[in-house]
Amino acid sequence: MQFRVAILGCGTVGGGVARILLEQREALGERAGREVVLARIVDLMPDASAKRHSIPRKFYAGDGAELTPAQADAEIKKVLQDPNIDLVVETIGGSGPEILAVARGVLEAGKHLVTANKALLAKHSADLLTAARKNGKGVGFEAAVSAAIPIIKGLNECLTGDEIQSISGIMNGTSNYILSKMTAEGEGFADALRDAQAKGYAEADPTLDINGGDAGHKLTLVLRLAFGLELAFEDLPRQGIDTVTAGDVAFAHEMQGVIKLICHAQRVGDAVHAAVCPMIVKHTNLLSKIDGATNAIRVMGRYAGEIVLIGQGAGSLETGSAIVSDIVFLARHGEHALPKVATTDFDLRPLGELELPYNIVFETADMPGMTGIVTTAIGRQRINIDTVSHNRHQVDHAEFAIATMSCTRAQVEWAVRDIQANHPGALLGEPRILPILV
Amino acid sequence: MQFRVAILGCGTVGGGVARILLEQREALGERAGREVVLARIVDLMPDASAKRHSIPRKFYAGDGAELTPAQADAEIKKVLQDPNIDLVVETIGGSGPEILAVARGVLEAGKHLVTANKALLAKHSADLLTAARKNGKGVGFEAAVSAAIPIIKGLNECLTGDEIQSISGIMNGTSNYILSKMTAEGEGFADALRDAQAKGYAEADPTLDINGGDAGHKLTLVLRLAFGLELAFEDLPRQGIDTVTAGDVAFAHEMQGVIKLICHAQRVGDAVHAAVCPMIVKHTNLLSKIDGATNAIRVMGRYAGEIVLIGQGAGSLETGSAIVSDIVFLARHGEHALPKVATTDFDLRPLGELELPYNIVFETADMPGMTGIVTTAIGRQRINIDTVSHNRHQVDHAEFAIATMSCTRAQVEWAVRDIQANHPGALLGEPRILPILV
Repeated sequence: MQFRVAILGCGTVGGGVARILLEQREALGERAGREVVLARIVDLMPDASAKRHSIPRKFYAGDGAELTPAQADAEIKKVLQDPNIDLVVETIGGSGPEILAVARGVLEAGKHLVTANKALLAKHSADLLTAARKNGKGVGFEAAVSAAIPIIKGLNECLTGDEIQSISGIMNGTSNYILSKMTAEGEGFADALRDAQAKGYAEADPTLDINGGDAGHKLTLVLRLAFGLELAFEDLPRQGIDTVTAGDVAFAHEMQGVIKLICHAQRVGDAVHAAVCPMIVKHTNLLSKIDGATNAIRVMGRYAGEIVLIGQGAGSLETGSAIVSDIVFLARHGEHALPKVATTDFDLRPLGELELPYNIVFETADMPGMTGIVTTAIGRQRINIDTVSHNRHQVDHAEFAIATMSCTRAQVEWAVRDIQANHPGALLGEPRILPILV
Repeated sequence: MQFRVAILGCGTVGGGVARILLEQREALGERAGREVVLARIVDLMPDASAKRHSIPRKFYAGDGAELTPAQADAEIKKVLQDPNIDLVVETIGGSGPEILAVARGVLEAGKHLVTANKALLAKHSADLLTAARKNGKGVGFEAAVSAAIPIIKGLNECLTGDEIQSISGIMNGTSNYILSKMTAEGEGFADALRDAQAKGYAEADPTLDINGGDAGHKLTLVLRLAFGLELAFEDLPRQGIDTVTAGDVAFAHEMQGVIKLICHAQRVGDAVHAAVCPMIVKHTNLLSKIDGATNAIRVMGRYAGEIVLIGQGAGSLETGSAIVSDIVFLARHGEHALPKVATTDFDLRPLGELELPYNIVFETADMPGMTGIVTTAIGRQRINIDTVSHNRHQVDHAEFAIATMSCTRAQVEWAVRDIQANHPGALLGEPRILPILV
């Protein structure tokens, strides 16, 4: 019996899926235990999509060069009503009510759903998984987190014999490209962003990549799978990389580390501390070696210890490969493919409550005694100091950094307020505080 | 309905499995969709095993401190005949006919089998998978290759949307520990081995770790899953690390690389070229960063590009965690858990037929003109030279290395024979030839 697949939206990712389905038809059939067939593609621009991805035009719905939105809706409806379609790949994108309705409609029509849509899932995965269970169908979303890295099946099917203690990941290739560029060439953020845009690693509007939003969508999904935490995306603390300076990068280097945008989640008793934020990753941690647009995820298991998964986090065929693996999984396992994720009573807590080492960059007036003022205030908060960096004397001010031993973010902030209160004018601007990942 | 598990052989690995099953009972039940229960342990030394792993004695068969082999056989028979046992973990070890009979007996008794026994599987996996299919049961062996790294489910369930082009792995922790030690401290092989034995990273008889046998067992399994290649373990070319010298390590360092024992398999058309052998891994390759007893596997997909998985390749709880993930998988997916591995018509070919860069270390008489003699002979085989290392002048001889551009091993060997034939006495001993992994 054939396993028939329709693709809704055939742009970069959908086109990759269609190509792999056509090129690997025989091998996929053997792996799935039944023939896997590309049955139908619905796209607003069928001619252009067919040409761009070298896919025969006959797979596309509609006759002309373009479908009107009404025609596209009608074609999608036909797919959902077609009893011979077993699985629908949603690669339209967006997270508004229309796309949610399409995704839910797939499941309610008794078909499996596969999607790479992290924004939609971050908001509505509970809703979609409920619809899947009700209809005895599966939802595949391997491609939604770090594309080619098998972290979703990794958590759902592979690391199931363990108790996960923490997860730290580089899950946004654009920001990693920018930070790698700043590290390798001493560039400032704005120059590195322009370079990323010129090379196609960053969109014209890079907001979601830069502000931690995209990484936050992914961490939201990972928190649900790894810890059963039903959090709302909005509740996840996020900080972007646009405030990272060339000076911060240099201080990180001086203390044997590099700055990375890290999705971090750590279990402590009944709480999971989580955030997306730039962190200084020490050279001893493998994540520090991951440069450019590559993604990497480090899972610490109570029993297995450290497991690191590395791969491409974006790209047409890279993402397509992950989606096709979901298709094979659903064709093979059917209803058994539903993830059995336990919901738990974990509390989501901010990362700042954890005891972590911090690096604090102070801009100060260039006058003697500043190091004493700052280190004394830090000592008063019972924070142990690990290293004091070289002082960089500028024209009219100085910049230096202090790396602490483990403490809470609140302790660091009290120390800063102490300096500000007792030595007005000593600090020029707010110190820049980054957690350190060992 | 409970899912009941028996463990045969409760040493290092079996004990890890039992501990995790007891400590994680609730979480495992939620993930499996049914209660996962440790039902029975059979071990020759129940008192000692219970004490060592802090497992209540009541789980063990037998009353005394020891079971006779006949008593153990009878207890194993009871487990196989018990209709309330769903899955049997075989952690006895060995690959002789008795252990094959036990493993086959588990499947013929209508129970799932989970094992970490790479030696048994390398010889008999086809036999066991046939028995599993016939009885509608599954065989889990996640722990058999690189313990905590999810490479088995990775290949069977996760990277199924791709066409694998090559796999290169560090799959033996002992040899990696020894080579890392030689690299970090300039030690010779014998000293590094003694250190590994003193620290418990190498057994008193380290033969299988040192000669590539253990890594070969693992690559045999990986070749079956990744390429459907039904090879006999004996047909896989293997070379160990006992011939690697401190000088080779130094030459590797000079050319920006480190020596690792690599399991390599590469698809070219209808052939898969494979071998276990020491290779020089360039610093640009992530595998070069994997030190100590850690394992790492790099998969190149036609679509996904490079995927690297890193984790612990041994240890009681690390291996136990992988076995328990198999238990959850089989409890959840039942008959659907059978891997659908296609058999293919690939030819297994030696690695030496591939065009690879090579490093050749020459020991020569210490006299002028040697570099010219050697490089001329290499040029006559139409091999391009990448770098000529610094010449190390010793008391009565010299040592230098030449790194080539891509060529076959046969070309390199013809060049060596050319020198030997035309300049008798110029070379002291056989040159040491290592492929380079970029």
